[in-house]
Amino acid sequence: MTLLLDNQFPPIPESKEINTKAFLESVSHLPPFFDCLGSKVFAPIKADINRNIIKIKSVYDSDPVKYETLQQILLAEKSIHGSEWPKAGATLALMWLKRGLRFIQILLESLADGERDDDNPILIRINITKAYDQALKRYHGWIVQKVFKAALFAAPCRSDFLKALSKNQEVAEEDCLCKVRQFLINFTATVDAIYEMYYTMNAELDYQV
Amino acid sequence: MTLLLDNQFPPIPESKEINTKAFLESVSHLPPFFDCLGSKVFAPIKADINRNIIKIKSVYDSDPVKYETLQQILLAEKSIHGSEWPKAGATLALMWLKRGLRFIQILLESLADGERDDDNPILIRINITKAYDQALKRYHGWIVQKVFKAALFAAPCRSDFLKALSKNQEVAEEDCLCKVRQFLINFTATVDAIYEMYYTMNAELDYQV
Ligand SMILES: CCCCCCCCCCCCC/C=C/[C@@H](O)[C@H](CO[C@@H]1O[C@H](CO)[C@H](O)[C@H](OS(=O)(=O)O)[C@H]1O)NC(=O)CCCCCCCCCCC
Ligand SMILES: CCCCCCCCCCCCC/C=C/[C@@H](O)[C@H](CO[C@@H]1O[C@H](CO)[C@H](O)[C@H](OS(=O)(=O)O)[C@H]1O)NC(=O)CCCCCCCCCCC
Repeated sequence: MTLLLDNQFPPIPESKEINTKAFLESVSHLPPFFDCLGSKVFAPIKADINRNIIKIKSVYDSDPVKYETLQQILLAEKSIHGSEWPKAGATLALMWLKRGLRFIQILLESLADGERDDDNPILIRINITKAYDQALKRYHGWIVQKVFKAALFAAPCRSDFLKALSKNQEVAEEDCLCKVRQFLINFTATVDAIYEMYYTMNAELDYQV
Repeated sequence: MTLLLDNQFPPIPESKEINTKAFLESVSHLPPFFDCLGSKVFAPIKADINRNIIKIKSVYDSDPVKYETLQQILLAEKSIHGSEWPKAGATLALMWLKRGLRFIQILLESLADGERDDDNPILIRINITKAYDQALKRYHGWIVQKVFKAALFAAPCRSDFLKALSKNQEVAEEDCLCKVRQFLINFTATVDAIYEMYYTMNAELDYQV
């Protein structure tokens, strides 16, 4: 079994309201994804994502009925935080978390689609760069972008990454990618719904760090 | 008053045995030092140093009598952890923490000594680089070294850094540096004593991250 498939995201309902508790359960299995990248260089990223999850969870735990769905969190926080919002509370944490989720989604999609750098077919830098450019780059100032470029050299080669996704069992590449595609179905739908919610509620910010 | 001088390290006794409780109290004021660097890019460093301090504190709290001095911690852990030691417990945490302390020491010394890059006199990159080269570089693989070079661009200019050290009050540069020199006396003696202890006890490792 793959790391990801052991913990598939549930399908989202037609209303696109995402249940907070189920969402938190699913994303809690994602930080180990960054261990698949194999280097301690990625520890600060894992820590940042972990912090986002903890922040959302602590808001949820403070009143599980009031915060039953992610939509309810944004709505409630909008009135609680006033002009600070959306740069506050679980709204801010989820704003950043969704970018990390989009990064993971695009990286996996790109691998599943067989995108390769023909000059370096054993590497996944091209896939990581695509995910970074689309999900994160615009929210990073030039210094963090430079840090990213340096950190990229710590990325594992394709076969090691796929093996780590398969929990270090020997699995044929095609089997692994097949499971990745299966994982992506509900995962992508969830990430899309969150992006749509931020767009609809005018909760998206584009400041840089 | 300066950030640092509000929390001077106590003088070390002739035996050079460092009291754990007093040491933990003093170093707990250092993580905000990294906020003086002014950029969130340095947050992972602050977090790493914080983690070191928490690790040492949790060992100390488990038996304040047994672990009264830093020397006692190393001695006790040497027999507790067997062949894992010194890459274990508070011994490992202090091994890394002392490198961060040495970094701070050399950076402040270099500023107090008036070392400047004549081509960029308003910057402190030359001072930070000196501190990095002497305290940390050899423990970092080439990727982390590259990350460092990128992060260096986030360093503040000299006047902003000194102002932050003076808690954002307007203080003449010479007054601030005078206080830095005063802070360095006990601080350097403490850091030296810890290095000597690692050397004497054969507890130093030189693996790279
Ligand atoms: C000795 C030398 C040392 C030099 C020091 C170098 C340090 C380098 C700095 C690296 C940055 C680490 C990544 C973290 C970046 C974070 O700054 C951003 C914003 O982070 C958000 O900020 C908010 C406030 O604005 C809240 O605090 C959020 O927190 S809240 O929960 O409190 O609301 C928080 O997530 N998150 C991000 O950009 C998200 C990053 C997701 C990354 C996804 C994968 C990328 C994979 C790349 C693979 C190659
Ligand atoms: C979206 C793009 C994102 C890309 C991601 C980029 C991520 C970049 C990575 C940056 C690295 C952050 C610095 C942390 C480095 C740490 O890896 C090292 C070793 O850290 C030690 O490791 C041990 C195990 O080997 C234990 O876990 C120790 O922990 S234990 O307590 O558990 O035993 C731990 O401190 N500490 C260090 O090198 C210490 C660093 C001190 C730094 C001092 C100041 C430097 C100032 C520089 C100013 C310019």
